[in-house]
Amino acid sequence: MKAIARVVVPLLLVAFVFGAAYAQFAKPEEAIAYRKAVMTLIAQNIKWMGAVVQGKAAYNKDQFSADADAVEMLATLPWKAMTEPGSDKGDTTLSSAVFDKEEQFMEHATGFEAATAKLATAARGGDLNAVKAQFGQAVKFCKGCHSEFRKK
Amino acid sequence: MKAIARVVVPLLLVAFVFGAAYAQFAKPEEAIAYRKAVMTLIAQNIKWMGAVVQGKAAYNKDQFSADADAVEMLATLPWKAMTEPGSDKGDTTLSSAVFDKEEQFMEHATGFEAATAKLATAARGGDLNAVKAQFGQAVKFCKGCHSEFRKK
Repeated sequence: MKAIARVVVPLLLVAFVFGAAYAQFAKPEEAIAYRKAVMTLIAQNIKWMGAVVQGKAAYNKDQFSADADAVEMLATLPWKAMTEPGSDKGDTTLSSAVFDKEEQFMEHATGFEAATAKLATAARGGDLNAVKAQFGQAVKFCKGCHSEFRKK
Repeated sequence: MKAIARVVVPLLLVAFVFGAAYAQFAKPEEAIAYRKAVMTLIAQNIKWMGAVVQGKAAYNKDQFSADADAVEMLATLPWKAMTEPGSDKGDTTLSSAVFDKEEQFMEHATGFEAATAKLATAARGGDLNAVKAQFGQAVKFCKGCHSEFRKK
């Protein structure tokens, strides 16, 4: 027992100390606020880009590209906040299914990241038809994930 | 008069049509929600990085660098929302001084952008002392701007 303790206890301490470095949330409410903020920003940028894609606003390559770049970065941020234990309770629309099906959830997440990265690349290219096609792909991932992992 | 109208009216129309492309807010409340979301994310990432800088959490180069990259991008986002006309009213701590002193306000803004870009560069380098120094510079801009342009 003592021999095991000599190995296990220091390992636990290392895990504890280094765990603190991994940018975790102090409480579930903090994770909820974080992911809501990310989603507010993604939704607003998608709205701006969507207006261009739908022909309701003129296409400005630089502005569209800046919005797409922002979404590419923002798409990397919310997942650790969405898989924070206990954060399916309280003022949130996160479905508890995230914890039961974390692997499938993360497939949506990485799919959305990849789609927004391609959208940002297309936006830098400036071919509006390519941009529209890739915008459609990215938005599909929004809907796919929301239908499965967001409470009605 | 007619000659002037022939020039001015089309120019106004161009400004109107292209104005719609420049990713504006539909109403002041939308701008308030947008900038609050940006600030929530910046504050959380600053908190995570601050814990490392203060020695309360272990330094993990990749994680710190990801957080610094996020802040570099986020730092570019809130200003157009902060200078949105009418958005100093309502559920906000934005001081009306932003509109009276927009030039000084934007100096803070661009200074913060530059400081966070340098922080992201230092974080990629991985020299913790350089990171700490640049983190301090970035945080100075937070405080400088808040003391002048945020309501008490």
